[in-house]
Amino acid sequence: MTTQNYYTIGVDFGARSAQAILVDVTTGNLISSVDYQYPYGLITENLPGSDIQLDPGWSLHHPKDYLNALKRAIPKLIREGDVLADQVIALGIDFKGSTLIPTTSDGTPLALIEDYKDEPHAWPKTWKHTAAREKASKLTQLASDRFETFLDRYGGQINAEWFFPKVWELYDDNSSLYNAADRLIEAADWIVWQLTGIESRNLCAAGYKGLWSKSEGFPLETFFSALDPDLTNVIDDKMKRDIIQIGEQAGELTEEAAKMLHLAPGTPVASGMLSPYTAVPAASVAEPGKMVLMLGSNFELLVLAKKEYRVPGMAGMVEDSLVPGLVGYEAEQAGGGNHFEWFINNGIPSEYERLARKQKISLFKLMDQRAAELVPGESGLVCLDWWNGNRSILADRELTGLILGLSLDTTPEEIYRSILEAATFGTRKIFETFIASGVPINEIIVAGGKTIRNELLLEILANVSRMEIKVTDTPHTSALGSAMYAAVAAGESRGGYDTIQEAAQKMAHLSTKTYIPNNNDKKTYNRLYSEYTLLHDYFGYGHNNAMKRLNTIRNAIIEKKNR
Amino acid sequence: MTTQNYYTIGVDFGARSAQAILVDVTTGNLISSVDYQYPYGLITENLPGSDIQLDPGWSLHHPKDYLNALKRAIPKLIREGDVLADQVIALGIDFKGSTLIPTTSDGTPLALIEDYKDEPHAWPKTWKHTAAREKASKLTQLASDRFETFLDRYGGQINAEWFFPKVWELYDDNSSLYNAADRLIEAADWIVWQLTGIESRNLCAAGYKGLWSKSEGFPLETFFSALDPDLTNVIDDKMKRDIIQIGEQAGELTEEAAKMLHLAPGTPVASGMLSPYTAVPAASVAEPGKMVLMLGSNFELLVLAKKEYRVPGMAGMVEDSLVPGLVGYEAEQAGGGNHFEWFINNGIPSEYERLARKQKISLFKLMDQRAAELVPGESGLVCLDWWNGNRSILADRELTGLILGLSLDTTPEEIYRSILEAATFGTRKIFETFIASGVPINEIIVAGGKTIRNELLLEILANVSRMEIKVTDTPHTSALGSAMYAAVAAGESRGGYDTIQEAAQKMAHLSTKTYIPNNNDKKTYNRLYSEYTLLHDYFGYGHNNAMKRLNTIRNAIIEKKNR
Repeated sequence: MTTQNYYTIGVDFGARSAQAILVDVTTGNLISSVDYQYPYGLITENLPGSDIQLDPGWSLHHPKDYLNALKRAIPKLIREGDVLADQVIALGIDFKGSTLIPTTSDGTPLALIEDYKDEPHAWPKTWKHTAAREKASKLTQLASDRFETFLDRYGGQINAEWFFPKVWELYDDNSSLYNAADRLIEAADWIVWQLTGIESRNLCAAGYKGLWSKSEGFPLETFFSALDPDLTNVIDDKMKRDIIQIGEQAGELTEEAAKMLHLAPGTPVASGMLSPYTAVPAASVAEPGKMVLMLGSNFELLVLAKKEYRVPGMAGMVEDSLVPGLVGYEAEQAGGGNHFEWFINNGIPSEYERLARKQKISLFKLMDQRAAELVPGESGLVCLDWWNGNRSILADRELTGLILGLSLDTTPEEIYRSILEAATFGTRKIFETFIASGVPINEIIVAGGKTIRNELLLEILANVSRMEIKVTDTPHTSALGSAMYAAVAAGESRGGYDTIQEAAQKMAHLSTKTYIPNNNDKKTYNRLYSEYTLLHDYFGYGHNNAMKRLNTIRNAIIEKKNR
Repeated sequence: MTTQNYYTIGVDFGARSAQAILVDVTTGNLISSVDYQYPYGLITENLPGSDIQLDPGWSLHHPKDYLNALKRAIPKLIREGDVLADQVIALGIDFKGSTLIPTTSDGTPLALIEDYKDEPHAWPKTWKHTAAREKASKLTQLASDRFETFLDRYGGQINAEWFFPKVWELYDDNSSLYNAADRLIEAADWIVWQLTGIESRNLCAAGYKGLWSKSEGFPLETFFSALDPDLTNVIDDKMKRDIIQIGEQAGELTEEAAKMLHLAPGTPVASGMLSPYTAVPAASVAEPGKMVLMLGSNFELLVLAKKEYRVPGMAGMVEDSLVPGLVGYEAEQAGGGNHFEWFINNGIPSEYERLARKQKISLFKLMDQRAAELVPGESGLVCLDWWNGNRSILADRELTGLILGLSLDTTPEEIYRSILEAATFGTRKIFETFIASGVPINEIIVAGGKTIRNELLLEILANVSRMEIKVTDTPHTSALGSAMYAAVAAGESRGGYDTIQEAAQKMAHLSTKTYIPNNNDKKTYNRLYSEYTLLHDYFGYGHNNAMKRLNTIRNAIIEKKNR
């Protein structure tokens, strides 16, 4: 190992673990990686060390898990990577947002203070916390009634997992705790604060989760005061109006932090970041036209464009959020991998399980194999992929799933395949809406998610989208993106890069295997997609509101049952 | 046992077995029963004793099985019932139709003649024979083009399993064999012929399966000649225009037949009959207003009315067919029990199978138990029960099944229940159409079928139909009906009855358990049924022909695959 090699570290904080990687700045090659499981995990039942129960929809973290993750993972990375502390030129942190931490003015999380620790609202609320759903609906309604311009940047909808529904929930349920919180901050920014001693707010979180934009800033005081007069000054009281772009340096490692991480004091720390956005440059994308797809439990779709276009039902649009000068767009499919898992858990007869056991493969693998033997259109089935509502384009959580075309000959693998197909129809619907709204898309790069290695899904996606599909060659896209933005935070003068474009060119790599559409399947899928569209529009645009009416009946009955 | 007791015998010929019962004429009480499995069973692969393969859709019987069934079952009935031959005052035979037997002029089936036995068309074709599907479509088209009035009596559609599609198939595929067949006859009538030495044709088969009606007779020669000039005289050449009503005496047992059956020579034999029609009086129904339901693989619905009403999409309407002076109506749900079985075979995860094994109950029973714990509307699901097309009302076999309202929380028992519910929605749609067309219905009597003991289904049916449901107390409704018509054939002077109404009053019994709608469930199901109706009309009346287009794609692909 020669001393002229430079490295950066990226740490991606997830729901139950943090993934830390050490990469070579010149090549992006992975040197070492550590997956740290949070001892406290995702907290959904009881507050830690207490019998205080959480209501349904609650999802918390323990703040100790965050620093412990760094303390354990980073020294191990260095050791296993066999590099010197001063070869590590920068550190980048990304977190899934919004994760809100209420703290005192010195950054101490209220959850760690004896007086507050028994109060669930004192704890970091993760993006899986859905208890503020009603708050989000009311916020959306208020913004819509007031013709707030920011609403258009989010496809007309504020989501329960975002920052302000959580803030309002805290205030509304426990105003004295709200008052005790000097600061309200995203977990990514809080971690950076702990490492650098400087409180900063990153643009990605502010934009995608905090209703902020470069041109308009945060929502006006009048908006917050319409919500509640006590919230009028929430921005100036509890937050910051200074927003730093990702790839900027947020500060340098303090002596104490450097000691804890076995890194050099003064090492640049990049601005806080959010996953999955960091995956975009890690998928080698730093320009318009390329849609980055994350095929997880939900599918996430990210694309860059030169300016702001109002895409109906998109999840968000934030200028400068990923690449300076470009607007980052986000859309989401709430079903995705969730659907596949639902079907594997609920729809596969025991005879298939026996077969899988005999072949020593997973049920997923077995179903993939059997579904792969089918030809598009052979099943006669078309589904609407709305088992978990429709997040993007229709942006309607009340929609539900549909299977059409069942016959006495229909097999489980046919249904399975049609559910995979429906997910890709949903993807096509999103990017067609983007294109129709002005955002160019001509290539798809799959950059992560647990179904990223599902070859059948990728083949179907290529044929349905009629685009070539490329795939990243790393399982750590989010963390790699953070390491890349860290390299930019360090800058060329310190061995990094001056722009994320350069970093993307040097440090990101795609797999050589690409998925190319074939003419026959493309044609059949065009016909099936037109059936999907007809059903999508009929049930999605209110021609038949059966799904909503059935939900209403269902909710009334469940409520009655629980009384 | 005193000699003043009189008995009749009813024999119901099914697909794989014949069910024979001996009943007391005064009470209808079952004295003995024999279930005779045909040694040759249902022939769908190879001709018996040969390697001549049958095409898909073929379904034949061996004529030897019919007489053997009688030879084995009837003496055993007498013996086990401990009655004297001359206490048996009449014998009734029913068969499921149409089952066509080509014979010589003396009634010898062509299948039993050395020259013809290797020719599949020489064998009795059962009602499960669907190979004449295309012929049936063309017959329907021809009748429609010619404005044939008979078509209205069958809801506008001639079915593949009926008599004339089979006749045409025989002629078209092998005209020399057609020429060799002196007689073309329904299996029920053929058996009666063998027992009495007299060839007769029964009204039930002629009406429901042979396009015959009391007022118009058979279709005109011009219709048959339009089909093919060689078929112009098919009625006069191969059949009979004399049609006898069921409950009439067709003849008396010949010496030879009496000896074979251990009965007295001269015992009256009732006219041939068809199941499931004979079940109507066995369900104690001999008047208008009561819908008799058979809950088998398909659901069959039978009701009487005072005159002819044109019910759109009914399966058939035949004057005098069941009760003199009344019109018998038939409708059919092609899904029914087939749906439930499909789901049990294709949609139940292994964890449920383990549970069923542990509890030592069938998977069906387990699903019933779990589905019974759900409240109507709780699942948020609505299905269209068209897995096997729609036979009645829409009369469109190209329609397919649909499940709407799926979520990530949807469980297999919820889907199972919604499939049961959809079947009952289909039933309601049929009887509402009947009522709207003028046929009164105010009570439902369930008279058979393998799901007759499914309490959950009957409870749902009561709440969906908003009618009291009664159930027959015998598992042998079709055979009992034959025994009842036999009692009428014998007449009061010989210890029987002069009318089927009297026989129904005395010999038929309903279970004391009835299923009564409850107000809450009725209301919820009204709302779910209105969703069903909206989907039914949207997909059924061509507003969205997705199902047909998907079938077209599917068929093209399967054809290509098989090439």
